[in-house]
Amino acid sequence: MRVLRLKNPPSVIGCASVVGGKEHDGPLGADFDLHDETGTFGMDTWEKSESEMQRLALNLALAKGKCGDDVPEVIFAGDLMNQCTGSAYGLLGFCKPYFGLYGACSTFAEATVLGSLLISAGYFKNAAAISSSHFCSAERQFRFPLEYGGQRAPTAQWTATAAGAAILSASGNGPYVTEVLPGMIVDKGINDVNNMGAAMAPAAIDTLTAYFAETGKQPRDFDLILTGDLGLEGHAITLELMKERGYDMTDVYNDCGLLLYGRSSQDVHCGGSGCGCSASVICGHIMKRFAKGELKNILYLATGALMSPGRLKQGATIPGIAHLVRISAEKNGWEG
Amino acid sequence: MRVLRLKNPPSVIGCASVVGGKEHDGPLGADFDLHDETGTFGMDTWEKSESEMQRLALNLALAKGKCGDDVPEVIFAGDLMNQCTGSAYGLLGFCKPYFGLYGACSTFAEATVLGSLLISAGYFKNAAAISSSHFCSAERQFRFPLEYGGQRAPTAQWTATAAGAAILSASGNGPYVTEVLPGMIVDKGINDVNNMGAAMAPAAIDTLTAYFAETGKQPRDFDLILTGDLGLEGHAITLELMKERGYDMTDVYNDCGLLLYGRSSQDVHCGGSGCGCSASVICGHIMKRFAKGELKNILYLATGALMSPGRLKQGATIPGIAHLVRISAEKNGWEG
Repeated sequence: MRVLRLKNPPSVIGCASVVGGKEHDGPLGADFDLHDETGTFGMDTWEKSESEMQRLALNLALAKGKCGDDVPEVIFAGDLMNQCTGSAYGLLGFCKPYFGLYGACSTFAEATVLGSLLISAGYFKNAAAISSSHFCSAERQFRFPLEYGGQRAPTAQWTATAAGAAILSASGNGPYVTEVLPGMIVDKGINDVNNMGAAMAPAAIDTLTAYFAETGKQPRDFDLILTGDLGLEGHAITLELMKERGYDMTDVYNDCGLLLYGRSSQDVHCGGSGCGCSASVICGHIMKRFAKGELKNILYLATGALMSPGRLKQGATIPGIAHLVRISAEKNGWEG
Repeated sequence: MRVLRLKNPPSVIGCASVVGGKEHDGPLGADFDLHDETGTFGMDTWEKSESEMQRLALNLALAKGKCGDDVPEVIFAGDLMNQCTGSAYGLLGFCKPYFGLYGACSTFAEATVLGSLLISAGYFKNAAAISSSHFCSAERQFRFPLEYGGQRAPTAQWTATAAGAAILSASGNGPYVTEVLPGMIVDKGINDVNNMGAAMAPAAIDTLTAYFAETGKQPRDFDLILTGDLGLEGHAITLELMKERGYDMTDVYNDCGLLLYGRSSQDVHCGGSGCGCSASVICGHIMKRFAKGELKNILYLATGALMSPGRLKQGATIPGIAHLVRISAEKNGWEG
């Protein structure tokens, strides 16, 4: 069994999202807590800006959750930058036990999975899950210096300048993390760095298929099935291949990378990507929809492309991974 | 309380170590399961060699533990390479749920902490903890291309070409993981990339002080206190500052980086380092000493320097982290 049901489902007691100008100009702009049009957040390098976004997101999440100094008891965090410096430097000042994660764009779900399991088991009363990405630090590291002005392929996605932080707690009134399913590394041979959606879709399909097969649930049992950042290409592949496997997700399936930007108006090609994409969409938009009662029960899968520019030059393909989190308005949502 | 006591201490049922030629020529050489004098492990790039070391280490650990196909149920792994490709590519073929970690040289302990907590809580029956480093991939990424022939500073350490894998299980006859203490990020302002020991020592001191203060134990209550890879410099700092805090660790304290090489004969300056250093020393040397009955009760702290060449160029200092694992021959070792 890969599905892990949480005996004591932790509640999201506070969450916050911090984004750049482009993300604020998009259709979800009003749902984010804080934005900086310049994307610098007052820092003199993009890497420092990304760390600052994580710091701001965690600070805001703690404030919104009315948390005392004893919160969080532990931090689970990571980002896309080499040595995960967005997290290491951004969260240094909180002086809390820290687990550094690397799951590429799946990191926010990976953090939520681990935090939820350890709270449910009683090791911690609360935990923070945090992740971020920054368009400018990601372009510099993974693709070209911004000054080069590289042309973008039609299947390319836009790395979101965004951070999201959630405080999970053993007490609280929901929404609750009721089930999780840790992902496996899946590699179907995609080696096109401009098509991350295709590289990650097989991992999403593996995770979703395992979930439905083990639980006996159907896509229609959920208000929403939301992948992290497959974008237009990966979303289409996932929808089609899941249908072939007998799981019709039409009408119930969406993707954070498609929600974040106005695709036709904002020139982002296949949509958003990056660790901060799904982190901010969940901590901003989705949590607000839960608060309004619009959502009761969703599956959230953050998908990560474990892509390495160095290894690609050595002929490697791009492995993907997708960690699943079920979020429910009711504590015993999984019984429903 | 930062110390987490494991209600159902998981047992190490299999472990394996894979090393390069220099590590095999060192004083612990006979304790390692597999070595390749060339350090290539049959691969045409150093990065592929490191992945292959992780694959071999996990395969060997599973074989030595006489594990069936249902083991491991989950993998916790990471390494020093950008995007943690040693783990992602090396462990891809095992097709198991995977949590990617980034804790620099603390990764093996981080993996052991998380795996042990989740097994003790009943989420998994068993788990694998794996980490690696490779001198040549690390030099290329963090310092200079090998061809440059850079001079090494007296305080420099030698990144071990080594991998270690441990299979933790809810059943088994020990040794057992009986307590863990997740580390905090600590930054005391060291910015000398040639002195990782000094950068990591404050984190080790923070973790050890928290452990002794909370448990009321003294250093002499343990057969061995073993840090990951502080080397000569970090070992001396830790010994001295712990003594100042009232914890005299003389005679009971050693460091994996000091054990791995013949320091005077092997030209490694301050000793070994890298994720694979403590992973291989624990999975090779230390587990054999437990099997012989020479060790009954130890504290193992893997120390990580969350050092980023990119961020250092922007003026950052080097944060460190140290995760603690108590390993006991007896299941209720923590009662002793």
